[in-house]
Amino acid sequence: MRIRGRDKFLRQYHTYIEAGRIIQEATKYKGRWHELFGNDNPIYIEIGTGRGQFISQHAVQNPGINYIGIELEYLLLGRVGHKAEMAGAGKNLVVTPADASRLNDIFAPGEVSRIYLNFSDPWPKNRHASRRLTHEGFLKLYREVLKPDGDLHFKTDNRPLFEFSLNSLAEDDWKLAKITLDLHNSEWAEGNIMTEYEQKFSEQGVPINRLEARPLPKRTLP
Amino acid sequence: MRIRGRDKFLRQYHTYIEAGRIIQEATKYKGRWHELFGNDNPIYIEIGTGRGQFISQHAVQNPGINYIGIELEYLLLGRVGHKAEMAGAGKNLVVTPADASRLNDIFAPGEVSRIYLNFSDPWPKNRHASRRLTHEGFLKLYREVLKPDGDLHFKTDNRPLFEFSLNSLAEDDWKLAKITLDLHNSEWAEGNIMTEYEQKFSEQGVPINRLEARPLPKRTLP
Repeated sequence: MRIRGRDKFLRQYHTYIEAGRIIQEATKYKGRWHELFGNDNPIYIEIGTGRGQFISQHAVQNPGINYIGIELEYLLLGRVGHKAEMAGAGKNLVVTPADASRLNDIFAPGEVSRIYLNFSDPWPKNRHASRRLTHEGFLKLYREVLKPDGDLHFKTDNRPLFEFSLNSLAEDDWKLAKITLDLHNSEWAEGNIMTEYEQKFSEQGVPINRLEARPLPKRTLP
Repeated sequence: MRIRGRDKFLRQYHTYIEAGRIIQEATKYKGRWHELFGNDNPIYIEIGTGRGQFISQHAVQNPGINYIGIELEYLLLGRVGHKAEMAGAGKNLVVTPADASRLNDIFAPGEVSRIYLNFSDPWPKNRHASRRLTHEGFLKLYREVLKPDGDLHFKTDNRPLFEFSLNSLAEDDWKLAKITLDLHNSEWAEGNIMTEYEQKFSEQGVPINRLEARPLPKRTLP
């Protein structure tokens, strides 16, 4: 990804490491994130924070939840740090540069209460299907780190990715709920916090798809 | 519904009663449809046959399956009878005038292997939600009459009805599969038999939504 203002982002990146907003070695908190936050509040994570508007606003609105933003592109994390400060997010939000495929190195089993996936890369080619964040390989990781009553919240403007995700989750025995093919005109529009990307595309009239899913024990069909 | 050519339809209706294609008192076959068909082949039903293209072609292509078409508007059944004859359907297809809400008066528990719902009335007003054929009230009936490994195949051009159905089925613990928001451009396009309505609307570029669902034992969330 080409990022304009690279130097500024890099400066911000280091600023927010020093401020404790960016955690560089997430793996060392595996199983002890509560020590970092200093409380036993539920942990919600966003995989792919982008520029951070979504998670920052959530953190401000829900001080009783601990948020951890994960973003592969570490340079964006400086931006997230900045957004978080601007929004007035407290110590209940940290971000970390990491790959979703290492989720079980970062979190102990059952350590996470909710996973947010927002506008994840659709990886449109079939040969890249395993890279989609709702591919069964990732669902397996999510099952590992989620609490038994934890859940996944997913939204995307990409209809093929949404279709793929519906099938992938259903096949993997996740219980689906609050499925909508047009979030902003649905009963779940109220209280929806938009990502930067969502704001831009919904202004162009692109409908946003959304679902919630809970990992239930896998079962054999009769 | 206003039906053009009422007299002709009525004539056809009586013709196909005499020919044994239309069954007037379906309830008397409850638990003994196999006697009518003279074999133990699986029974697939279509709720709302319309003019019968879908079920007629299925019956021709699958002589090893017994098909029962259900249609509330009895006058349409004459038309279905005619379509079935034209298509060359054998004795593995009968149709009957009945209301879906009486499904358990027509079929014994586990007597049905598959239910087809095609382009069901969307009943767009919220106060009519319970009339939608994927409302939980109907799902309960389907659970009763379906075999444990039976399933439901549903297609519609109506996106709000499709959304409603996804949520309703997921909530009721049906296992979803082969979900597509654009059937004719999906991997499941091949072999798809179109209804008259589907043909007309897909020619206008309206995407067809489709899913399959299996009723799994209901379960309590942790």
